[in-house]
Amino acid sequence: MQKIRIGIVGYGNLGRGVELALAKCPDMELAGIFTRRPPESVKPAFSQTKVLHIDDAAGMKDLIDVMILCGGSAKDLPEQGPYFAKLFNTVDSFDTHAKIPEYYKKVNESARQSGKISIISVGWDPGLFSINRLMTEAILPDGQTYTFWGKGVSQGHSDAIRRIEGVKDAKQYTIPIEEAVEKVRSGSNPRLTTREKHLRDCYVVAEEGADKERIEREIKTMPNYFADYETRVTFITEEEMKRDHSAMPHGGFVIRSGKTGNNEENTSIIEFSLKLDSNPEFTASVLAAYARAAWRLNQEGGSGARTVFDIPPAYLSPKSGEELRSELL
Amino acid sequence: MQKIRIGIVGYGNLGRGVELALAKCPDMELAGIFTRRPPESVKPAFSQTKVLHIDDAAGMKDLIDVMILCGGSAKDLPEQGPYFAKLFNTVDSFDTHAKIPEYYKKVNESARQSGKISIISVGWDPGLFSINRLMTEAILPDGQTYTFWGKGVSQGHSDAIRRIEGVKDAKQYTIPIEEAVEKVRSGSNPRLTTREKHLRDCYVVAEEGADKERIEREIKTMPNYFADYETRVTFITEEEMKRDHSAMPHGGFVIRSGKTGNNEENTSIIEFSLKLDSNPEFTASVLAAYARAAWRLNQEGGSGARTVFDIPPAYLSPKSGEELRSELL
Repeated sequence: MQKIRIGIVGYGNLGRGVELALAKCPDMELAGIFTRRPPESVKPAFSQTKVLHIDDAAGMKDLIDVMILCGGSAKDLPEQGPYFAKLFNTVDSFDTHAKIPEYYKKVNESARQSGKISIISVGWDPGLFSINRLMTEAILPDGQTYTFWGKGVSQGHSDAIRRIEGVKDAKQYTIPIEEAVEKVRSGSNPRLTTREKHLRDCYVVAEEGADKERIEREIKTMPNYFADYETRVTFITEEEMKRDHSAMPHGGFVIRSGKTGNNEENTSIIEFSLKLDSNPEFTASVLAAYARAAWRLNQEGGSGARTVFDIPPAYLSPKSGEELRSELL
Repeated sequence: MQKIRIGIVGYGNLGRGVELALAKCPDMELAGIFTRRPPESVKPAFSQTKVLHIDDAAGMKDLIDVMILCGGSAKDLPEQGPYFAKLFNTVDSFDTHAKIPEYYKKVNESARQSGKISIISVGWDPGLFSINRLMTEAILPDGQTYTFWGKGVSQGHSDAIRRIEGVKDAKQYTIPIEEAVEKVRSGSNPRLTTREKHLRDCYVVAEEGADKERIEREIKTMPNYFADYETRVTFITEEEMKRDHSAMPHGGFVIRSGKTGNNEENTSIIEFSLKLDSNPEFTASVLAAYARAAWRLNQEGGSGARTVFDIPPAYLSPKSGEELRSELL
């Protein structure tokens, strides 16, 4: 059986996660990592992995079935998504929610022209959480959906703290508030603002001699990011930061609470939850499964942009329809 | 906008659940209930619902877009599934796991001939649980999947108790064993037999003067059903049975625990859980959403049998692709 040949564009935590994830997929093989850095400066997880310059990708159209784009949503993907969709089937994790419609449109144009498939915004949110929001709302139209994130690091909030004068390093964990979660699980359909659902837990390394009281005040009063939330600030040393806060755990849950019956007398609670030791490795594993789907859809003649909403579950699995029906249905 | 016209075949708890579920779907309308009983003997939930004889269905091919088959898997569906697939798009909840491949084949032949779509084995298990088993295995190939059922009534086990001499009525609840659940949630990937995962809790009304010790012994030693399980037997009165055990709650969860990383050093836990006050009303709500998908797939020219594995999530929702991408992704 011919293996699906995968390329990885961008080698940060996510790209490395994809390299590791592919090692667990016997039906796929890694053709190479494409980087903007000098290729010899990149150290892949496996010594046999080829590292190439990103400019070499265009010449390898016949050697790669799906490109997994592992760049960031702010600066890399808005350019790389439409560019690579002109050349390859692609999968990416574009996650700037507000800009998804615009990004979809651009990638769709490229992929229609090239006759390739591009699955955008793949991962867990957007991604698996989105699928659960859609399916549970369709099944229980009379209800409420709640998404909680965490416990996990928010990169944007950590960066915001780092921009404060006197801050050397910072990590911000988003933590679901247990009381809110329990209310939702009880089926009482509470009205909850984001602030009532999450607490912001900040670990800060201050520069020597910096005014910690001012830093704490600036964090807690920062508009949009912290002012509206219950925010905890803990100052730690650089060693503690490295020792206790270098892992990348994350997780969260989507809960739909809906009513059925002649008088809405019955409640159904559907919950989908994730608890991840490594957010980038898990997201990468989702991307790898959707790369399989992208390749299959294109083999069937499909082209254009897709989201996780458009992909039949069977396309994610290496098993045949018969196997799936007899083993997993 | 033309509404999707739905027919219900069979009016037990599930059929009634579909009647109620459709009332929550503004894009669908109920054309009628089809029953083998004298139509005038059936009392629908809503007075305006039409009740017709099942033999009248064949003459209504142009008046119904999708038939939701609400009969049982043991006797009704093996006949009704292939029969109705010759006439209508259909959705059913066929749940005899071992016979799904054979049933799929027969329904597929009918639906291919008629040019209709039949989505079989829809509900939560088989159904939503199956989707989660498939997707989480595809995403985390290096891992284990665990399905727990309950707390909920097992009809088959309740019936088995009722066949014992001296038993007037019985209900058997399947209950997940908390200790096993916690082991799985911890990511330790334990080996667990069904017996280590579930406890069987039986409520029995004995005939007057019956030998309760013998009944309890016969239950606990019954091969296949109880002998291999931790089984609890409680004798109650007929009034208690009616007062405390007439609801139809159910639920359960699918947990995938998988490893990622260069040395399997990171664990991901994915959990999908259901807590249902009314098992038939929830299952019916799933059937209604998949009826929407059946109709759309057929509108696009599709024909033949499908399972939940073949249905893109977007087809379940009344919202457009644009709406889904901007609101739920």
